[in-house]
Amino acid sequence: MAEMVSNKQVILKDYVSGFPKETDMYITTTSIELKVPKDSNGVLVKNLYLSCDPYMRPRMRNVEGSYIDSFKPGMHISGHGVARVLDSENPEFKKGDLVWGMTGWEEYSLITDSKLFKIHHTDVPLSYYTGILGMPGMTAYAGFYEVCSPKKGDYVFVSAASGAVGQLVGQFAKLFGCYVVGSAGSKDKVYLLKNKFGFDEAFNYKDEPDLNAALKRYFPEGIDIYFENVGGKMLDAVLLNMRIRGRIAICGMISQYNLDIPEGVQNLMNLVAKRVRMEGFFVRDYYHLYPKYLEMIIPHIKDGKIVYVEDIAEGLESAPAALVGLFSGRNVGKQVVAVATE
Amino acid sequence: MAEMVSNKQVILKDYVSGFPKETDMYITTTSIELKVPKDSNGVLVKNLYLSCDPYMRPRMRNVEGSYIDSFKPGMHISGHGVARVLDSENPEFKKGDLVWGMTGWEEYSLITDSKLFKIHHTDVPLSYYTGILGMPGMTAYAGFYEVCSPKKGDYVFVSAASGAVGQLVGQFAKLFGCYVVGSAGSKDKVYLLKNKFGFDEAFNYKDEPDLNAALKRYFPEGIDIYFENVGGKMLDAVLLNMRIRGRIAICGMISQYNLDIPEGVQNLMNLVAKRVRMEGFFVRDYYHLYPKYLEMIIPHIKDGKIVYVEDIAEGLESAPAALVGLFSGRNVGKQVVAVATE
Repeated sequence: MAEMVSNKQVILKDYVSGFPKETDMYITTTSIELKVPKDSNGVLVKNLYLSCDPYMRPRMRNVEGSYIDSFKPGMHISGHGVARVLDSENPEFKKGDLVWGMTGWEEYSLITDSKLFKIHHTDVPLSYYTGILGMPGMTAYAGFYEVCSPKKGDYVFVSAASGAVGQLVGQFAKLFGCYVVGSAGSKDKVYLLKNKFGFDEAFNYKDEPDLNAALKRYFPEGIDIYFENVGGKMLDAVLLNMRIRGRIAICGMISQYNLDIPEGVQNLMNLVAKRVRMEGFFVRDYYHLYPKYLEMIIPHIKDGKIVYVEDIAEGLESAPAALVGLFSGRNVGKQVVAVATE
Repeated sequence: MAEMVSNKQVILKDYVSGFPKETDMYITTTSIELKVPKDSNGVLVKNLYLSCDPYMRPRMRNVEGSYIDSFKPGMHISGHGVARVLDSENPEFKKGDLVWGMTGWEEYSLITDSKLFKIHHTDVPLSYYTGILGMPGMTAYAGFYEVCSPKKGDYVFVSAASGAVGQLVGQFAKLFGCYVVGSAGSKDKVYLLKNKFGFDEAFNYKDEPDLNAALKRYFPEGIDIYFENVGGKMLDAVLLNMRIRGRIAICGMISQYNLDIPEGVQNLMNLVAKRVRMEGFFVRDYYHLYPKYLEMIIPHIKDGKIVYVEDIAEGLESAPAALVGLFSGRNVGKQVVAVATE
């Protein structure tokens, strides 16, 4: 008989409308057997780092037909994470392996139905596999190189630019020879963008009563590429400032996730006037490029050409607050929860 | 000294807000010398047919930085037309040539600065060069084949489907092996779509209180291609029904042209969930394909594989009403004004 251990979990109380609050979740303690059932093809892991990502907000709503299932009230939530394999019936993984992928918001998870990636490079912070070396990194990579069709010298605008994805898009664009401006929601974040991530310019959107005027200031000749993370009013202002044959890659629209009815976007006729391509994308379609991405990014991390800023909350108990903070922009850089240090 | 003749013109009274009215224009009679000034590189034409097109509405507004200049209050308006060359200082054209291109809303025009196409095929109705053989035809051709990236078997939806462009997009899509549904604003138009243009299905959007439900009825599996002519609520409903990797080609948004503030479009997050590409396009970028288009379309017109329905108003005096009728959907098929029969 295998060892039974206690297992703290983060439970969603009920479907959420409006801004999520810490009290929409609670911590409970259950128990789990540290062994994978024989016929399950599963993997039993100890979670080390959990990732707080904007796409988790729509999962707190009861929506059918979305690209990702809703969380279930009364059940623990799930998300990307980094974990150590304790037991495996899956031939791809063995005890002791480090993995990243979709896991539960709990101390230990039995993973039976989601794709896990084995971690080979361990001479970098393991938490990076929730960010630059994980889903957000691949999102930035695929979104910028595959969807934005960048050209050297392009004028690039990134919203939510200090976030898990934005900080990388800006650095990729600079490496590529583009002019890059980012927007973020605080003075500290703007400072980071200019002084740590090497953006050419950055501004605090909360200080700009007229976003159109702000964009005209930083892009007097217009925008070739907009990497869209926020939606709503920012998108409307960007549409007024696109250049001919510009491209808008829609990664997400975080400003809309807490609204019951999304804001209306009014300036879509500019897509015609400027012959702009606006395209939504989804990182899952690009994971075949992950080995190529690692080959590019690992040396850049080691030689310091690409930097990555994380905001790490300690302990599973801090996870609800960390997740909720994402939607008020409390985090500076990629929001991670450190669950265990082994 | 060349002949001076009287020249009736359609004058824009003042910039227009809201729905244009006949009284926003008036007819006046000036005079014109039927001779091109020696150093002008110009062409003097007698206008035969004038084209009423949705894009003319934004030109009645005072907007800077649009893709096309505003009309000038107190001056005659302009648009696409078919004309006979009476005199030419342009080496590409000579007296007697038939041409189509941008001309004035008047009996005679001195054209100095716009591209004209010489008409070679005259065994088809000349008015077709305002439609199927002119700008709308090229718009349908480029929009469908170049922007929509069609595949055999695709589910295609066309709005304003009986209009100058829509009726062709539907027929092109059927020829290509797609399933095609069109929307229009009257019973007669719906009848045309199904019985003349060969759409698989068609519906009157004015009879549908819930456009999302209507689209779900005709596209239980969703929409691969949306050829967008109307914008607003229809676009919002379509966004809820796109299939994965669908494409939206934005040709125009006629429902929005008479609004001071465009309607907001709320369902753009579906572009991400379904990885949809939405792209504005502009026929001017595709005129290099015109010879190839003629090669394809002329035989189809002659063998009856492609049909074209026009709504012809007689006389320059009827032009203001014809143009205004476009925005209430009064026209059935391509709206043309016959100015002269020579």
